[in-house]
Amino acid sequence: MSVLDKVNSPEDVKKLTNEELENLAGDVREALLYKVSEVGGHVGPNLGVTEMTIALHYVFNSPIDKFIWDVSHQTYPHKILTGRKIGFTKGHFHDITPYTSQHESKHDFFTVGHTSTSVANALGYAKARDLTNDKGNIIAVLGDGSLSGGLAMEALNNAGQFDGNLIVIMNDNEMSIAENHGGLYAHLAALRASNGTAENNIFRAFGLDYKYLADGNDIQSLIALFEEVKDIDHPIVLHIHTEKGRGYEPARTDKENWHWHVPFDLATGESKNSGAGKSYTSIVLDYMDKKMQEGSPILAINAAIPGIFNLKSFAAKYPKNYWDGGIAEQFTITFGGAAALAGARSFIFHNSTFVQRAFDQFVHDLAINNEPAIVFVKGDVISGSDETHQGDFARGWISNIPNLVYLAPTSEEEMLAVLDWATTQHEHPVIINVPEHGVESRPTVLTDFSHAQYQLEKSGEEVAILALGGLYSHSEKVAAELEKSGIHASLVNPLFISSLDKEFLTALTENHKVIVTVEDGVVDGGFGQKVASYLGKYNVKVLNFGADKEFNDMVPVTELYTRYHLTPELMTADILTALKD
Amino acid sequence: MSVLDKVNSPEDVKKLTNEELENLAGDVREALLYKVSEVGGHVGPNLGVTEMTIALHYVFNSPIDKFIWDVSHQTYPHKILTGRKIGFTKGHFHDITPYTSQHESKHDFFTVGHTSTSVANALGYAKARDLTNDKGNIIAVLGDGSLSGGLAMEALNNAGQFDGNLIVIMNDNEMSIAENHGGLYAHLAALRASNGTAENNIFRAFGLDYKYLADGNDIQSLIALFEEVKDIDHPIVLHIHTEKGRGYEPARTDKENWHWHVPFDLATGESKNSGAGKSYTSIVLDYMDKKMQEGSPILAINAAIPGIFNLKSFAAKYPKNYWDGGIAEQFTITFGGAAALAGARSFIFHNSTFVQRAFDQFVHDLAINNEPAIVFVKGDVISGSDETHQGDFARGWISNIPNLVYLAPTSEEEMLAVLDWATTQHEHPVIINVPEHGVESRPTVLTDFSHAQYQLEKSGEEVAILALGGLYSHSEKVAAELEKSGIHASLVNPLFISSLDKEFLTALTENHKVIVTVEDGVVDGGFGQKVASYLGKYNVKVLNFGADKEFNDMVPVTELYTRYHLTPELMTADILTALKD
Repeated sequence: MSVLDKVNSPEDVKKLTNEELENLAGDVREALLYKVSEVGGHVGPNLGVTEMTIALHYVFNSPIDKFIWDVSHQTYPHKILTGRKIGFTKGHFHDITPYTSQHESKHDFFTVGHTSTSVANALGYAKARDLTNDKGNIIAVLGDGSLSGGLAMEALNNAGQFDGNLIVIMNDNEMSIAENHGGLYAHLAALRASNGTAENNIFRAFGLDYKYLADGNDIQSLIALFEEVKDIDHPIVLHIHTEKGRGYEPARTDKENWHWHVPFDLATGESKNSGAGKSYTSIVLDYMDKKMQEGSPILAINAAIPGIFNLKSFAAKYPKNYWDGGIAEQFTITFGGAAALAGARSFIFHNSTFVQRAFDQFVHDLAINNEPAIVFVKGDVISGSDETHQGDFARGWISNIPNLVYLAPTSEEEMLAVLDWATTQHEHPVIINVPEHGVESRPTVLTDFSHAQYQLEKSGEEVAILALGGLYSHSEKVAAELEKSGIHASLVNPLFISSLDKEFLTALTENHKVIVTVEDGVVDGGFGQKVASYLGKYNVKVLNFGADKEFNDMVPVTELYTRYHLTPELMTADILTALKD
Repeated sequence: MSVLDKVNSPEDVKKLTNEELENLAGDVREALLYKVSEVGGHVGPNLGVTEMTIALHYVFNSPIDKFIWDVSHQTYPHKILTGRKIGFTKGHFHDITPYTSQHESKHDFFTVGHTSTSVANALGYAKARDLTNDKGNIIAVLGDGSLSGGLAMEALNNAGQFDGNLIVIMNDNEMSIAENHGGLYAHLAALRASNGTAENNIFRAFGLDYKYLADGNDIQSLIALFEEVKDIDHPIVLHIHTEKGRGYEPARTDKENWHWHVPFDLATGESKNSGAGKSYTSIVLDYMDKKMQEGSPILAINAAIPGIFNLKSFAAKYPKNYWDGGIAEQFTITFGGAAALAGARSFIFHNSTFVQRAFDQFVHDLAINNEPAIVFVKGDVISGSDETHQGDFARGWISNIPNLVYLAPTSEEEMLAVLDWATTQHEHPVIINVPEHGVESRPTVLTDFSHAQYQLEKSGEEVAILALGGLYSHSEKVAAELEKSGIHASLVNPLFISSLDKEFLTALTENHKVIVTVEDGVVDGGFGQKVASYLGKYNVKVLNFGADKEFNDMVPVTELYTRYHLTPELMTADILTALKD
């Protein structure tokens, strides 16, 4: 019987001997490695915090004492120790979410997927505790790069004026998701090298008390530290040095690639499947390389997730032309926009779910100043992701900002035509929706993207389908379905998300009764509703297809397509109904 | 002849003697005080940076050397010295914008109205300079509270890894817009008290070089400092202590109230007009006071602009229940949302234009976690503001986030009913659009705001007008206009911005041919387009009235109402046309 077999709650952790605690760490690692090797997931961060998590539950009394985790991808050991170890066994992997969830356990307090939130969340809990005369320690676990996000620093600054109990663990594993960047990480290195005594301590500058622990994988040291600060009456930062990937050699030696990993062979670390080949990302990277050869002053910018865009080789080849801003989306937009205005050619790469952090910078910096940067937004698509990484909201905010040229290319040719235009003009911020549905080839005649020009790909009557970006090909199937009912639908590639081709739309009303829009994301605030609004004064019907405005937590895409009537059959049925009425 | 009379460009500043430079400071103060006393504007910040601005132009060569200002409200002296002094004379006050603008002068590089952007903008310029083999010093002027914003700290962290020329002036006037808050400002005080030698220097922690100047209103000291760092080959922070309000006694002694001021009598400092009386803000404040008396654990939160919401008296009366987060909008939402989840009653106050910074926190923290905080959004209205403070975009993003209950009360009774519901439920984040059109009285029957229930205020036929929030009364005039043409329009108070009362809308289609929506903001992404989308499948026309998606720089409201057909006459004409077709 392993130690983990007898641990079903934090209470059980408290009963263990020192030796059992050590063995528990091994058991926890084994459980989590087994799961991630089977289904993929966050490897390095979880391995690093195993001992810390055990010590936290040994010393503190969750849920009266509250652990508030930053970046939930450090929370697998916490999940294992708080009654959810079944989620790490075959057949039950999806019984639990990959993130903290207050709906899943009384030991979780927030549903979290974006970084740098823990200190603000913890301070909110601590302030409410004091206002409601409640009790307990509030412990934020900041870490794994989160410190570079503005929200974390805003919160540390605010914590510095708080006068009650608040414990902030700075889990320093020497790494962000990618390497840590920025001056601050050199400072953390200096603190590590000096056992926490280096000058210019940033946490103390924020007005916070501070302690350093060199070996954050030593359970007894951790327990001693936590005992010392338990029930402290003021905010303190515990700077704890842990080893990312601890206990699994491949993850320990290649920390970045093992931050998150696809399913792999446990014995060798070999990936079970490998995807490669041409993608819209590779098309963009090849294009950048070509422009570099031509002497273009390219500046590729990224917020700590270079792997997602395969930017590593560009960064290695052209280090002066690459900038990783850390987990600081706001900065990347203001910085990249300014550089574009000043003559560089900024290529800024973002995931839809994270770039939300930079909304004001899109409005106030990019748009008002018409900075000719190019921003690639990936993952704005109806997917089976968890709710904290749901990417299909991008159209509902980006398309409502003036001045931006927001495009959804549907083919390699269109992507290249867009890039040729975007990199030779100086007037427009260009936002490019990167399709996720595989590279397609379709000739384009467009060379100027400064104003909307919808493309009529197939001329028909009665019904016109405006199929945006990634769902263009999908909509060809709808047109084919309609043919079966004798309806010769027009098929349109709008390509422009943020502005309407009003002349084209007006012309459509002449021989079409039903205008259909299809988009790979939430309908509210997006493309289709702009079409419906414009056509409201005409005697046509408009049907907007896309996702409902709702959060979905790992719901299979097929289920979502059915729910939203996005399958060719259901769409066709709705269109035929609208034609009849 | 004053010294200013012979200064028409930075070149002229360089020719002045030491004595003339001193006199120039007096002339600049006189010019800017004259203007703000006549038309209102930023007083204290500009008075404080007068000498610094003169010294900057004396030492550096603008525009080859580039000054990149944070919060443009420090830039009046810069404007006066760069050929725009006419804008400070009678009859020409509005010849220039109140903010920096690259379209107005070659000495400006960005249009800026939100804080904390200067370091990111400057770093972008510096990086582009190096990539394009350009030259010149890049000088960011951070200050007046901007340091508390996450974007500023993200950028300082990134500047710490830059290897070229970059000069960051930290203009420390001991004040933010309101008092500075947070541990960082105690740290700045310690640096000031120690002549820049206090331990834990935050700028050095970010990896930046650092120099301190105690008397930032002494021109010769400033010139010496700037000469010393001109053409420096690495990033450096110049921490310069200036006096906010310098040279005008009322502004010097009451720094907060003289940050921005309405027109005033120069001799006495008395305001020329004073507005008071009941407002939606005063209704909310009275309500909060009542709840405090009842023992409710209220937490009022604000981002450094308490004056706008008259929160000062609440803060003085209930200091434990008030939190000013500094210019850190992201933090206020995550913090206030967490506190609400933990049992406090969070009342968060924001201006529409600034709260954009917290979009991700609305989605990821408030909405996903269903945190029952109340967020008041003021200024989401079609106004004659400058483009960097344009507030009418809020509906185009807030209404597209799931889970939020986003309401537009139209009367005191509705505001109170909303507050009664919002403060007794625990499931919904509540966003309240604060109307700006004067308090009205109109009974309401609603007590539950968990789902949309449109109110039919006047039953008619053919035409139905859905008049949202602040434009409800305005729409009564449209209905009256329609009566003149024999149209008995229905008048509806939707009140719910973010969700549709579908049953109500469906019923409307039975005896109405034209459904009209009216909202006080940009149409794209907002309320009306959701109605148009829903009704797209019905045989009705839909007209959406509101603002176009565009930036407007101090365009008079009457002009905008005409442009957008929001006058009763133009709206009526459009409705009659739609009825005819």
